[in-house]
Order: sequence, then C-alpha cells, then structure tokens
Amino acid sequence: MTDTSKFPDPVYRDTVLAPLFEGVKTHFAGHMDAINRAHLVMLLETGILSPEDGARIADALRAIADDTDIAALTYTGEHEDYFFLVEAELRDRLGDLGGALHTARSRNDMDHTLFKMELRRRAEGLQNQLLTLAEAVAAKARAEAETLIVAYTHGQPAQPTTFGHYLCAALEVILRDAARLDAAIDGLEHCPMGAAAITTSGFPIDRARMADLLGFDGPLVNSYGCIASVDYVTGLYSAVKLVFVHLGRVIQDMAFWSSFEVGQLYVPNSLVQISSIMPQKRNPVPIEHMRHLASVTAGRCDMVVNTMHNTPFTDMNDSEGEVQQAGYAAFGSGGRVLELLATFLSSCSIRADRVAANMDAACVTITELADTLVRDEGLSFRQAHEIAAATARAVIARHAPLREGFSAFREAFADLAGHAPDLEEAGFRIAVAPETFVARRNRTGGPAPAALQSALADYTETLAGLRAAAQSRTTRRREATTRLDDAFAALTET
Amino acid sequence: MTDTSKFPDPVYRDTVLAPLFEGVKTHFAGHMDAINRAHLVMLLETGILSPEDGARIADALRAIADDTDIAALTYTGEHEDYFFLVEAELRDRLGDLGGALHTARSRNDMDHTLFKMELRRRAEGLQNQLLTLAEAVAAKARAEAETLIVAYTHGQPAQPTTFGHYLCAALEVILRDAARLDAAIDGLEHCPMGAAAITTSGFPIDRARMADLLGFDGPLVNSYGCIASVDYVTGLYSAVKLVFVHLGRVIQDMAFWSSFEVGQLYVPNSLVQISSIMPQKRNPVPIEHMRHLASVTAGRCDMVVNTMHNTPFTDMNDSEGEVQQAGYAAFGSGGRVLELLATFLSSCSIRADRVAANMDAACVTITELADTLVRDEGLSFRQAHEIAAATARAVIARHAPLREGFSAFREAFADLAGHAPDLEEAGFRIAVAPETFVARRNRTGGPAPAALQSALADYTETLAGLRAAAQSRTTRRREATTRLDDAFAALTET
Amino acid sequence: MTDTSKFPDPVYRDTVLAPLFEGVKTHFAGHMDAINRAHLVMLLETGILSPEDGARIADALRAIADDTDIAALTYTGEHEDYFFLVEAELRDRLGDLGGALHTARSRNDMDHTLFKMELRRRAEGLQNQLLTLAEAVAAKARAEAETLIVAYTHGQPAQPTTFGHYLCAALEVILRDAARLDAAIDGLEHCPMGAAAITTSGFPIDRARMADLLGFDGPLVNSYGCIASVDYVTGLYSAVKLVFVHLGRVIQDMAFWSSFEVGQLYVPNSLVQISSIMPQKRNPVPIEHMRHLASVTAGRCDMVVNTMHNTPFTDMNDSEGEVQQAGYAAFGSGGRVLELLATFLSSCSIRADRVAANMDAACVTITELADTLVRDEGLSFRQAHEIAAATARAVIARHAPLREGFSAFREAFADLAGHAPDLEEAGFRIAVAPETFVARRNRTGGPAPAALQSALADYTETLAGLRAAAQSRTTRRREATTRLDDAFAALTET
Amino acid sequence: MTDTSKFPDPVYRDTVLAPLFEGVKTHFAGHMDAINRAHLVMLLETGILSPEDGARIADALRAIADDTDIAALTYTGEHEDYFFLVEAELRDRLGDLGGALHTARSRNDMDHTLFKMELRRRAEGLQNQLLTLAEAVAAKARAEAETLIVAYTHGQPAQPTTFGHYLCAALEVILRDAARLDAAIDGLEHCPMGAAAITTSGFPIDRARMADLLGFDGPLVNSYGCIASVDYVTGLYSAVKLVFVHLGRVIQDMAFWSSFEVGQLYVPNSLVQISSIMPQKRNPVPIEHMRHLASVTAGRCDMVVNTMHNTPFTDMNDSEGEVQQAGYAAFGSGGRVLELLATFLSSCSIRADRVAANMDAACVTITELADTLVRDEGLSFRQAHEIAAATARAVIARHAPLREGFSAFREAFADLAGHAPDLEEAGFRIAVAPETFVARRNRTGGPAPAALQSALADYTETLAGLRAAAQSRTTRRREATTRLDDAFAALTET
Repeated sequence: MTDTSKFPDPVYRDTVLAPLFEGVKTHFAGHMDAINRAHLVMLLETGILSPEDGARIADALRAIADDTDIAALTYTGEHEDYFFLVEAELRDRLGDLGGALHTARSRNDMDHTLFKMELRRRAEGLQNQLLTLAEAVAAKARAEAETLIVAYTHGQPAQPTTFGHYLCAALEVILRDAARLDAAIDGLEHCPMGAAAITTSGFPIDRARMADLLGFDGPLVNSYGCIASVDYVTGLYSAVKLVFVHLGRVIQDMAFWSSFEVGQLYVPNSLVQISSIMPQKRNPVPIEHMRHLASVTAGRCDMVVNTMHNTPFTDMNDSEGEVQQAGYAAFGSGGRVLELLATFLSSCSIRADRVAANMDAACVTITELADTLVRDEGLSFRQAHEIAAATARAVIARHAPLREGFSAFREAFADLAGHAPDLEEAGFRIAVAPETFVARRNRTGGPAPAALQSALADYTETLAGLRAAAQSRTTRRREATTRLDDAFAALTET
Repeated sequence: MTDTSKFPDPVYRDTVLAPLFEGVKTHFAGHMDAINRAHLVMLLETGILSPEDGARIADALRAIADDTDIAALTYTGEHEDYFFLVEAELRDRLGDLGGALHTARSRNDMDHTLFKMELRRRAEGLQNQLLTLAEAVAAKARAEAETLIVAYTHGQPAQPTTFGHYLCAALEVILRDAARLDAAIDGLEHCPMGAAAITTSGFPIDRARMADLLGFDGPLVNSYGCIASVDYVTGLYSAVKLVFVHLGRVIQDMAFWSSFEVGQLYVPNSLVQISSIMPQKRNPVPIEHMRHLASVTAGRCDMVVNTMHNTPFTDMNDSEGEVQQAGYAAFGSGGRVLELLATFLSSCSIRADRVAANMDAACVTITELADTLVRDEGLSFRQAHEIAAATARAVIARHAPLREGFSAFREAFADLAGHAPDLEEAGFRIAVAPETFVARRNRTGGPAPAALQSALADYTETLAGLRAAAQSRTTRRREATTRLDDAFAALTET
Repeated sequence: MTDTSKFPDPVYRDTVLAPLFEGVKTHFAGHMDAINRAHLVMLLETGILSPEDGARIADALRAIADDTDIAALTYTGEHEDYFFLVEAELRDRLGDLGGALHTARSRNDMDHTLFKMELRRRAEGLQNQLLTLAEAVAAKARAEAETLIVAYTHGQPAQPTTFGHYLCAALEVILRDAARLDAAIDGLEHCPMGAAAITTSGFPIDRARMADLLGFDGPLVNSYGCIASVDYVTGLYSAVKLVFVHLGRVIQDMAFWSSFEVGQLYVPNSLVQISSIMPQKRNPVPIEHMRHLASVTAGRCDMVVNTMHNTPFTDMNDSEGEVQQAGYAAFGSGGRVLELLATFLSSCSIRADRVAANMDAACVTITELADTLVRDEGLSFRQAHEIAAATARAVIARHAPLREGFSAFREAFADLAGHAPDLEEAGFRIAVAPETFVARRNRTGGPAPAALQSALADYTETLAGLRAAAQSRTTRRREATTRLDDAFAALTET
Repeated sequence: MTDTSKFPDPVYRDTVLAPLFEGVKTHFAGHMDAINRAHLVMLLETGILSPEDGARIADALRAIADDTDIAALTYTGEHEDYFFLVEAELRDRLGDLGGALHTARSRNDMDHTLFKMELRRRAEGLQNQLLTLAEAVAAKARAEAETLIVAYTHGQPAQPTTFGHYLCAALEVILRDAARLDAAIDGLEHCPMGAAAITTSGFPIDRARMADLLGFDGPLVNSYGCIASVDYVTGLYSAVKLVFVHLGRVIQDMAFWSSFEVGQLYVPNSLVQISSIMPQKRNPVPIEHMRHLASVTAGRCDMVVNTMHNTPFTDMNDSEGEVQQAGYAAFGSGGRVLELLATFLSSCSIRADRVAANMDAACVTITELADTLVRDEGLSFRQAHEIAAATARAVIARHAPLREGFSAFREAFADLAGHAPDLEEAGFRIAVAPETFVARRNRTGGPAPAALQSALADYTETLAGLRAAAQSRTTRRREATTRLDDAFAALTET
C-alpha cells in the first residue's frame, strides 16, 4: 500500500485548516505573540538560551510583528497553521536558531494558555457588564423603594409590595450570579505554560515566571491536566448560562407587567415599537429581544459544555480553537442582553394608576385586615379570617375597593364576633391601605423602608466587593503586560 | 407622566436594531424582494390594485433594486428596519401609492415566509451534502464489500465482518436521517403569505397564487398558525441534530480504528498531521475535527429549538430574524462535517495486516467452529461449545492463531465427544477462516456477498428516491422563480 | 499478575446488576418471553431444531413461566442477569438441550428487539393520548367557532378573532406533531432478531418470520445496524420532545389569558386552587403544572438523545436497559400533560365580558375601518389610514369604544378627504364591529365561519387518518400475539 | 355563566395532586414536621403565640405524628395536599387554635425551605461520595506514582508518563468539581422561612431563629426572592452536571486503555463480563455503565435547569415539588457512578508488558533523545532534532525498539554533526529509557517522583479542607436537630 497523498487534502484545508486560521487571526494572534515573548524571556532568565541567542530571536520577533499585517493574511495550506507560519518566519530570519524558541514548550500548552487569555478577557468584560446591570438595578431599587406595585404569585395579584423590593429580589440573584461568574473566572487564573506536550520538560523551565509574565495567578499544576482538563471552559460557560436563565425569568415578568391589560410597567416611547394606525398598540419588543437573546446565549453555553461530553480526557481538539471560537458568540449575545436590560430597567417606570386599580380590583390587602384583627382586636385566627373573608366577598360583589368596605366589615364583625369592633372607619382605611401593608412588613428582607434600606446597604457592599475583585484582575493584567514589555525590551537592550 | 423619549433608544438601536438590519442585508433582502414582486402580481391578478397602479409600483421596485447597493447600507436608526426603508423608498417615488403594496399583508406573514425561503435553501443544501455522503458511503461499501475487518462490541474484538457490511450499517442510519430531513423540509413547503397580521384580510387575496409564485407547495392554512407556529423551525433543527449525533458515533469508531494499537483503519497522509521527529506519530486529527464540529452543530440545533421553550405561542420575535440567523451556523459547521466525512471515508482504507493480526490474537471465529460442529458433526450445542472453548483456550495459551489449532481441537473433540471428528485439518482451517465466517452469514442483512449486494441494491434505490425528491424541489424552486419573473415582467409590459 | 477476583464485584452488583435486574422484571420480562417463544417456533419451522426438541423446550418454557413469580424475584448475583436466570432454569430442566434455544441468536439482537417492543407500546399509548387531545381541541374549536377573543401579538391586543380560530392554529401544530410521532413510531417497526451477536448466523434462520411473530413490519436489514443503530430511540424521543415544546407555548398563552387582569379565559372551579380569605384569588395552577411537566418531559427526551452523543456506533450499553428505562419517565410525565390539557381545554370557556372590554379598550378593529374606506369609499391607502388613525386617537382620548366614534370619524373624514363619507353611523358601527372583522376574513385559513369550517373538515380528515394508522398498529400487534400464541401452542399439540 | 364544578377535577386529582402527595410522603413529610415544630418554637419565643396555646399545639403535633403512618396514606382528594391534611388534623384536635400554627408563614416559604432541606441532604451525600472517590484516586495515584504508562494525545501514543501522574490530572479536576459543588451547597444555606407568602409578615417573627433551628446558616434576605429565586436549584444541578461531564472523559480513556489491542489497563475478573466460549473476550462493561450513567445524570441535571427557562420569576410551581423530585434521580444515578468508579479505579492495574510493548513500537521517548543532544552534546536544536528523527526512522524500519538503535544513532550523529557523539551505548540506552524520560521531568506538575509527591501533598491538603467543610455541615445539621428537639420538648415541659 503506497500512500502518495500529500497533506493537506484540499477538503481538509477548506473545511478545517482555513477556518481555523481565520479564527487564530481574529482571536489569538496577539496572545500568541505575548506567549512567544514571555517564553523567550523565561528561556533567557533560566539560562536555557544564551543572551546572544535571545537577543537575536527577540529582534526577529519584533521584525516579524512589524512586517506582518495579520488581518491581511489568507490561508494557503503551505503551513499547517498560524503557529507554523510564525515558526517558518523565524527560521527564514534565523536559520537553525529559529527553532530554539520552541524549546521546552509545545502547541499543547501554548494553545490552552492563549484560550484562557482570550476567555478571561471576554469573561471579565461580561462580568463588568453584569456588575453595571447590578448597579443599575440597585440604583433603580433605591429610587423606587417606596413605589407600590402588585406582587404576583401564580400569575395572579397577591399582595402589595414595592418596585424596590421586587428589584432587590432580582438583584440578589444577579449578585449571586456575579459571584458564581467571579469564581469561574478564577478558574482561568492558572497558566498551562511549561506543561509542554504533556509532561513538562527536561529543561529547567520556570513555570511560575511564565504565569507571572502572562498575568496569571500561578501555574496550573499537573502538566497532563494542563492540556487535558477543560473545566475552565465548562465551568465558565455553566456560570454564564445561569446568568441568562435567571435574567430570562425577570424578563418574563416584565413582559407580563407591560401587557396592555396589566399595564403596571410603563415602557417609554424610546423602547416601544408602535403602529401608526393603532396609537394604543405599543409593542415593548425589547423585552422579546432580551428574552430570545438570553435564550440564545444560554443555548450557546450549552453547546460548548456539551461538546466536551464523552470526549476522551486526553484528546484535545474538542476543546480547542474551533470550539473556543464557537463559544464566543455567547459573550456577544449575552453582553447585548446585559446592556439592554440595564437601559430598559433604568428607563421604565411604574404606572401608579394601574397599580392602584389592580390592587383595588384584586383586594390584595385583605390578609392584613385579618392579621390586624388578631393583633388589635384580640380575635382568634379563625374569627379574624372569617370576618375578613366576609368583608372581601361583600366589596367584590359590588365592585368596590376594600377601603370602601367599612360598613360591610362592621356588619361581619358584629355577626361573627358578637360585638362591634374597636376599629373605626379611619383606622379601617389605614389597616387596608397598601402603604400600611408594606410599612408593617419591616422584617428582615421585607419591603418596609427600613428593612429594604438595610438590605440595600448590604447589596451595595457585596457589589463593591465584586467590583473590586474585577478591578484587581484588570490591574493584574495591566501590570503583567508592562512587566512583559519591560522584560522583553531588556533582552535586546543589554 | 410625560414621555418625551424618542424611538429608538441608542442602546436598543445598537444592541438590537442594527444587528437585525445587518442580518436582513445578508440573508433576507433577496427573499423580501421576491415577496414584494409576487405580492404585487397577486394584487393585480385579484383586482385589488389596478393595472396602472401595479405598473407604477413595479417600476419603482425595479428602480429601487437598481439604485440600492444593499451590502453597502449601514443602519442609521432613521427607519425601524429594512422593510421600512424599502417602504420609505417607495413613498419617496410614488407618494401615497407607495403604501398600496402593503395592502392585505403584514410584516408578520412576510417574515415567516422569508424565513422559510432561506431555511429551505439551506436545508436543501444540507440534504444534498448528506446524500452526497450517502453516495460516497455506498460506493465505498460496494468497493469494500469483501474487505475483512474486525467487528467490535463493547470495544472488544468480537467477530469478523467486512468493511462493506459495517459501512452499510452506517448507511442505513444516514438514509433514515435523510428521510427524516426530507420530511422536515416538507415542513417548509407551506406559505404563510396571506395570513397578514394574524387573521388574513378582508381583501380578496389569492393565497394559493402567492404560494405558487414563491415556490411553495401551497399556503399554510390557519392564518394565526402562519405567524405563531414554529414547528417548521424546531422540526427542521431536530432532524438536523440527529444527523450529527448519529454521524458522531461512526466518527468515534473511526477514532478507535485508527489508533496506533488497533490500526485497522489507514488514514492517508493527506489527512494526517505528523511530527517531523516522531515519524510513526500520525495524528488523524480530521477525526477529532469532525467530532467536535458535529457536536457544535448538534448544540446549535438545540439552541434554536430550546429558544422556543416556554415562549408564548402567539408572541413572535423568539422565532424571528435574530434566532433564525443564529441557527444558520449549524448549516455551516454541519456542512463541513458532511463534506469532510465523505472525503475521509472515501480516502481511508483497511490495513489487512492489522485486521489479520487482531483476528488471530482475538480468536474471533471460534463461535463458528462450535456452530459447525453442531451442523456437521451432529453434536449437541453444549458439546460443541465445550470443544470450541477448549480449543480456544489451547491456542491462546500458546499465542497461536486458531487456524493452527487443529491438534488441540482434535484432542478436545476426542475427549468430550468420545470419538474422532470427521473434520480434517483442511476442513478445520476452512471452518475457522474469517472468509468462511462471513460467507456463511448469508442471511438478510448479513455480510456474505449475496446478502450484502441485495441490501446495497435496496439502499441505492432508496437513495435515488431521496435524490429525486431533492431534485424535484430544486426544479420547483427554479420554475417558480421563472414564473415570478415572467409575471412581474408582464406587469409593465402590458 | 494473578487475578483471583470473582465476578461480580459487590459494588458492581449493587450499582449496576441489581438495578438492571429490577428494570428487566418491570419492563422486559414479558417481551423476553414472547421472543423466546417466537424464536423457538422459528427454529422449528426452519428445521434448525427438531420437533421433539422443540416440544420439550416449549414445555420447559411453560413450566418456568408457571413456576416463576417474576415480581417476587430479587437479584442475588448468582446469574449475571435475568436472561441467564431463565437459561439456567432451562438447563436445570432440560440439561444440554436447554442451551439449544439460544441457537442463532444473541442477547444483542434480543435486547434491541425487546426495547423496541416496549418503546412501541409506550409510544403508541402516547400517540393515542395525543390524538385524544387533538379530538378534544377539534371539538372545542367547533363549539367555539364563533366565540370572539382578542388575538395577541407581542403580548398586546392586536385583532379580534375567534377561540375556534385560535384553537385550530394549535390543532394544526398538534396534527403535525402527531404525524412526526407517527413517523417515529414507524422507526420501531423493524425487528432486529436474527442479527444474532453482529453478523446474523450460519444457521438458516427466517428473519421475516421472527418479525411477523413479534408484530413488526419486517426485519431491520443490516445486522450490524440491528445492534448498533440507535436512531429508533433518538428519533422517537426527538419527536416526543417537540410535542411538549410546542404544547408548552399554548400553555403559556393560557397562563396569560387566565391572569386576573386579562381574564379572557375562564378556568372553572374544578381546576382552580383558591384561598378562603381572598375569594377573588383564583390560581389556575393546572396551567403551571402542565408547563413544568411539559418541560420535564422535554428534558427527559433530551437526556436520552444526548446520552447517545459521542458514544461509539458499535458499543452498546449506552442505548440499553438502564437508559431505555430512564427514558420511560418521559412517557409518564408527558401522558399526564396530554390528559390534563385535554380536560383543561374542554372545561375552560371564554369570558365574553372581558373580551368585549379588552377589545373596546384596545381599539382592535381600527385597521378594518381603514380597509373599508379603501374598498367602499375609494380612498387612497394613505388617506384611509390617516382617517382611521385620527378616529382611534379621538376615541382613546375620551376612553370610549371605537363604535362610539362616528362623529370623530366623520370629522376626520371631512378634514382629510375634503367631503363627507358615504358611511353612516349604522354602517360605521358595523364596519368596526369585531363580528364584521371576523366575517370579512373569509380567506383560506381565516376566522370567518366558512373558512374555519372548511379547515376543520380537513383537520378532521387528517385526524381520522392518524387514528386509523394508530388503530392498524394495535390490530397488527393483537394479531401477531394471536399468531404467536397459536404457533407456540402448536409446538406441543402435534 | 354558572360554575357548578367542584375542585378537584378527577383528572387534575389523578395527574397532579395524587402524584404530588406521593412525593411529599416520600421526600418532604419529615422536613415539614421539623418546620412545624421550629415555627411553633419561634412563635412562642417571640410572643406571637402564648405559652398555653403553644403547649396545646405541640401536644397535637406530637399526637398527629404518633397516630399517622405516613407511608400508608393514600391521596383521596379530600384535602388539596399533605399540608392541608396536617392542618385539618390540627383543627380536628384543637378547633380554632389549629389555624394558629400557620400565623406569619405560608406554604410558599415552607415549600422552598423543605426543598432546600432535602436538596442539601442529597447534595451533601453526593459530595461525600465525590470526596471518597477523590481519596481513592489520590491513594491509587500514590501507589502508582512510578508505574509507567503511555500518555496519549489525539488518541495516539505520545510520551511516557506514570499512572500516578495521569490520575493526578484527573484528581485536580475532581477537586475543582468538589469545590464547585461545595460552593453550590453553600447556596442552600439560607432559609426562606419568614418570607411568608411574599413580603414577610406584620407579626414580629424572628427569621434568624428559624434558620438556626432548621440548621441553616441564616435567613435568605429578600422575602420575594425567598419564594421566587431558583438559583439554589440551578446552581446546584449545574455543579453536579459538571462532575459527570468531566468524569465521563476519564471513563472514555479507561474504555480505550482497556481495549483488547491497547490493553494498558487491566480490569480484574470481578469487573469483567466474559463469554464462556471466547476466553479472551473480556468485556469491561462497568466502563460503559459508568459512561451512560454519567450521561443520564448530566441529562437529568439539564432537565431541572432547563425547566426554569423562560418561567416567570415570580411564578412558582416550575421549581416546586414535582420538579424537585424529578431531579432527585440525578443523585441516584450520579451516586452509582461515583461508587463504581472508586471501586473500578482502585481495582484496576497497569499491564507493564503492554505498556512496554506499546512504548517500544511507538518510539515515545525520541524527543528526549533530541533534548539530551542539545543539553549534553551542545548541538543546535535543528541538528539534535534531525539526528533523533533519523534514528527513529531507522529503528521503526526494522521494527526494533529505540533502545536497540544505538548504531543507527551513531551513524546519524556522525553524518549530521560531522563527528562521533560523546554518548556511548549505555548512556544512549539510559537517554531513551522511559524511566529517564519521567525522571527528568521534575518540574512543577511533572511526573518525576519529587514533583508528583509535592503535588500529591497539596491535593491531600485540599481534600482535607473539603472534607472538613463537609463535616462541619453535618455537625451543624446534627446540632440544629438537637437544638430543635430540645426547644420543642421544652414547650410542654414548662
């Protein structure tokens, strides 16, 4: 069996190599350059290469960078990939020495290093967008701390609460999601460089220094794991997915609240598509767009995670270039949701008239009347409950709001308790007012002003902590870049 | 509450409207033009518009097409979307009459119509690629009908069969997948035009004619369903997903077969990435690339289907432009798998030496020896089984192939049957030869030549049927295009 | 390396073998018995076994069936699985001959045969439930053919239509889903028996007869495919998933319609959980239960399909007992949704008062006014549109329904058209009545009575066809059972 | 419209209420009892109920517990659910007072509290199983620290390493997964009690005390979030899914290693299913079972997470009883994988003969020869590389192991370097020995003994930390139980 075929088969070139090359150009070339420079610095510092060789290679790298318009490259099939193209350029300029840069490393450790560098850039960007959303939600919650809304359960009006209280419920989830994302970004902080092909190297490399120069927290220890483990990918995309599954639920509430009949949420003209002939038909389509973009984002995260399913631990392409890039679309669509939702929530307002009308129609404060009777009139729970129910039935029968129900109440009270209530009409109106309902719920986590302000103070602190963590990462990256630039510059200065 | 905000909010414009506009430019503008022309023809034919008005609108449409470089448009926010941009162009040219083209239709029915037009184009392309793969597999199966391979179960050598037999197993699945895809494409054959916004129109439109002019089989009946039902999308992507889940399993076999130690499958140099220092390290990475591209494709299909989950039936954006486009990536990655796999399977060959060595080591024909003893020596199943097992143990103990085990066999036979076998050494060698094993399995679906050829004839017929169906769709599209062009041209000729 | 360990390891026994055994008892023992009896019949008919041996084995099978209380068996680890337990019982009773039943077959072909038998039983049950739902929807649509409802798009009131029209939109999807399910059930109609371990057998088996006795349409051809291909599983669960993704969208509409503020759908007391203290708080929780049960069902389908991902084509346990059983939960939860939804839709009604109020508030017939002006007053589209818009603005400004807007209309008409309309107040009221809106939409697929009745007649026919297909399968199974019972009885009668 | 229907509709009862009731019996009744007792204690401590009333209710709760055989209950439809059944029992015994236990709480906060209690029980169990697996892997890695294996990339032999090194790669992932699971369990530590229906209560409840009595870390703050947020569910199942996606990859390696042709991993008889007739056919089916059980577990996790998709934030049943229970199956199948994998890895061993043979055939140490030439002979990288490649080609051509290649090496060296090497045959043999290869890779994370022991020490510490965290949770639960029992007992003792 003689095999005279030549690599690459044109179909392989067109279906795999060329698209990969395009991806490297767009996403990874800059990181590869940083790795090349850091590796060279490390090889010099450890004495694996001589200063003279190092300087020559450094010069060549600089020259290649100057001479190459990466965006203009097209894949020819001459070199297997971008890595080999750079290597060929080095050899063209340096001869034998060109290969020396590849001492004690491999495309395996380089690849996962640059994937992490790109992922952390994107993940940190998303985290910043998420924290901006959190800040917008917190600000809105503070501003709307006393704005009454109808709280729904099972899609039906249930109790009064405030928009601020609702937003804080959403905010707590966002903050926990941001904490999950923060932990997942931590999973990108360990550098594979030095793992070489699988087992590190016989040369006296300095893995900690490589990590340091590339802005990582430290090396990822097990060298086989460096090139085989993919949980930095799956952990990150799982965390991202949750953000959007959870936001999608708030978005569904917004859809309901802004429906014509409910109308609790007013969406401003800037976010409504209208019909010139139906002036009252205001379609708050940004809500739908946020919903499907959130779904698409979650689906893209699943795609990446599930691609790893049933792959061998120690095979590799399933977690590499093509799949890495396929995942980036999640950051694109997800980022759009975060931006739009921050704008949306900041811009919307509560229609007090609709809230009041819906509260009246739905008799949402009736349970507080029963509680009041227990606390203030000394009734048993059952009596209190029966009087309240009778009152509710009476006002609903005549389509009146509960606050107009004092006479019905007094009648029911006399009937069931056998005597007149202490409560007079003014007190009754206070007892059944939504404002009273809210004010009395001043327990941990309740909507009353003090409880809510206390919670908001805690959220603000948590948020500040998350921002600080994000900021310290940014700083670390910037400092590492400077460190690398300086060390690389020094190679030829000496 | 005064709302002085203006549509669109800049964030909405940038996160939603501008990306949508780009998508329309790339994917839908041509279909929208066809719909415009077909609708105009229909309005004239039904008398809803007068010939004179029709001619003027037709001229304007032509002029707009001539004057507009769609690819060069950038989204400004002046018009909500591409549709409104065209409408504004019409009004600029025709004044009041510009709005007449939109009589008895809506963006709702137009959108799902053009989504179907684009999806059917892509789905038909994928089906053609799948059928090309099926043809390649059938051709290879025919060529390798008598090429022995080891058949594995539980990842262990189990029996001899032929490469052709294995490929036909895969081919059957591909053909069933192609039939599923064909049925899913049928789900794109009904035209929503005429549903208008939701409920059809009070004007005497001709929905069948619209379907006809746009190359559909007929109108989709229920008009609310025309704009609300998404099973044309979910059904299609579900069918596509299955193709790639199933192919991924064959790809896993190829990975195993081409491993260094198994070596049953020879991957030619044109499809192997090598190491210059390790000449025997031949990495058949196209296999990995096919695996992850298949996974990514399946994941993209899931993304689209799952985006529909828990959306209201009668809301719409979740199945529209943005999501439609997000799904197209599945056709890209999927098509690459199909092309590469067809090339891969056509190019690979079976290494007879490795097959023979593995068969010898694994004693894979031993069950046929037992069967032979039952059939030809009249032994009970148990006796036959025990003699065969004793023979296997003996040859394995001395690392000999089974065909060298006649003396061990004769001994075991005498021991357990109490007399010498009729079978002599030549007959024994024949009985345990893989060729015999295969030849005797001449039952429906077995690997023996006659059985396999008969099956192949059936597959060829099925394949021809699927090709004919695909071809007839292509023809229908082309004829409809001609019909539409002619009818449109006639508007101004008269 | 001496290996003195004995199979099975206690942990393997407890984590795998015992649970599998329990599963076989519950789901497969009956099918295995049918396969045993059919295989014996076939071995006799083809002369592979003698009549005498056949009669003895038949007697033993009967005796084992009589003596064994399958439900009472507990797994001991003595036999690897249930299959071996039966085989051991046969050997106990028949000695050597006990093994003869296993001639020309294998657990491989037996397993996939019994999986198909159980899956088709469940799938046919689900299809019957789905068709019952379809009938309930069709009946309701017929009954509510003229019941006005508000049709929503983007969650906002858009146009009048009828409940019957809406239900028919849903019905079309259900019928297409039922057709997909029907096709997927067809994928269970081919019998793997005769594939034996992989490659069929050297014995002159009759695969068509086996298929016939077990109620299949015929044998599945390629024998390797019989034990390796899993698309009968993935195809079925994909089709089932779609049913529930699609129904979940209708369920979301029901949730919206039955909300307190929209109130278009009245859910009767029998399906509402109430609060004794809040008489107006009626929680239509069946809707939520249908939603999550549909989601869970879809998720279970995905679980099965995705388990096959990246498994080798020719490995097997990933599609076998444990996974088969895990999937059955989808039929349980799915069946509950279908039953409950049929009851729910049949029991609910439309609240005409709420529909009328919402229509009035939302001015949903305004577009028909414009169309009327074009058709009857000969206005241009633009003029008609402007007059309608002005009328709408006027009535909305004074919170009046459109039908009270004649004077505003007349004024706008005079203003913009420069003369008085022909339309008088009575005609105006007719033009803007929802009944008129519906009646005029008598196009294919529209809500007008004739169009809807015509569509319903088509659906009824489609439904009857699907029922007939389901019924013919039931009949085929029953006839096959009789055929098998007769043939088996005949073994010992002769 | 008169509605004479009575709750519950029989279909609703059978499809929803009865299954829910069965679930509560099995999973939640004990937790509900604890909540009842803790709530009563808190109501007394805060003075919301009087000591006398408290004592009477406590007695009644005790009597109900004594009188009720929960397992024997069957659902009748008389009470909506188990909660109401208990409440009815209380009212039967206490009259009006029976309702007092429900003061300042709701089924909403109770439900999510008991779901968390059950989930944490299961999640903690799974975490313990995962840590046991981690300990087994660490122990095995320690024992096999110097056992050579072939390390694969792209499914092809690449380098020598040790089994211990490989296992540590897997161990790192397990430890990170355990850390993720630990964080997810932390998400279950905040108690919803006191949220009542949505907004807390007007009564002066003590939420911290409730959390304390039920073994939580503290209350979950925002009360709306207590009943609406589901990230405790989604976060947990996401973390669980990752465990099994990642383990599944190691399992795929085990499948490959234990294949007949590779044979690097020896699976003992206790874990192998064999064929009596094919003595060498050893099917290591536990591997397949682990694979599909891992897949099924991951799929069940997805099912739960995806059920939340697009549900309203403030609706509830989608995250409640039915779905909670559906998820528990993931802990069942997942736990089986963990147990079986711990046993499997502990029982298996490496076949040194097969490792050696595969290493010889694959020339896996050739890169170290080149590195040696650079380090010890002062050659350039290119020269070293070319000499090594020539040596490899030569030995492969004559099917000899690399260690037999000294003469070929010397020849290539002379040819390319122009002089004889310093390296003599003994040194050559050492240079190309796998033991040397491993010993020289003594960098952070490498396989050399010192590097590996150092890493193992770190893992042991991490593992101890995770165990301690798990243990402290167990202790907290136990102490809380005692605290609750004592406090409840004290109610009637005073």
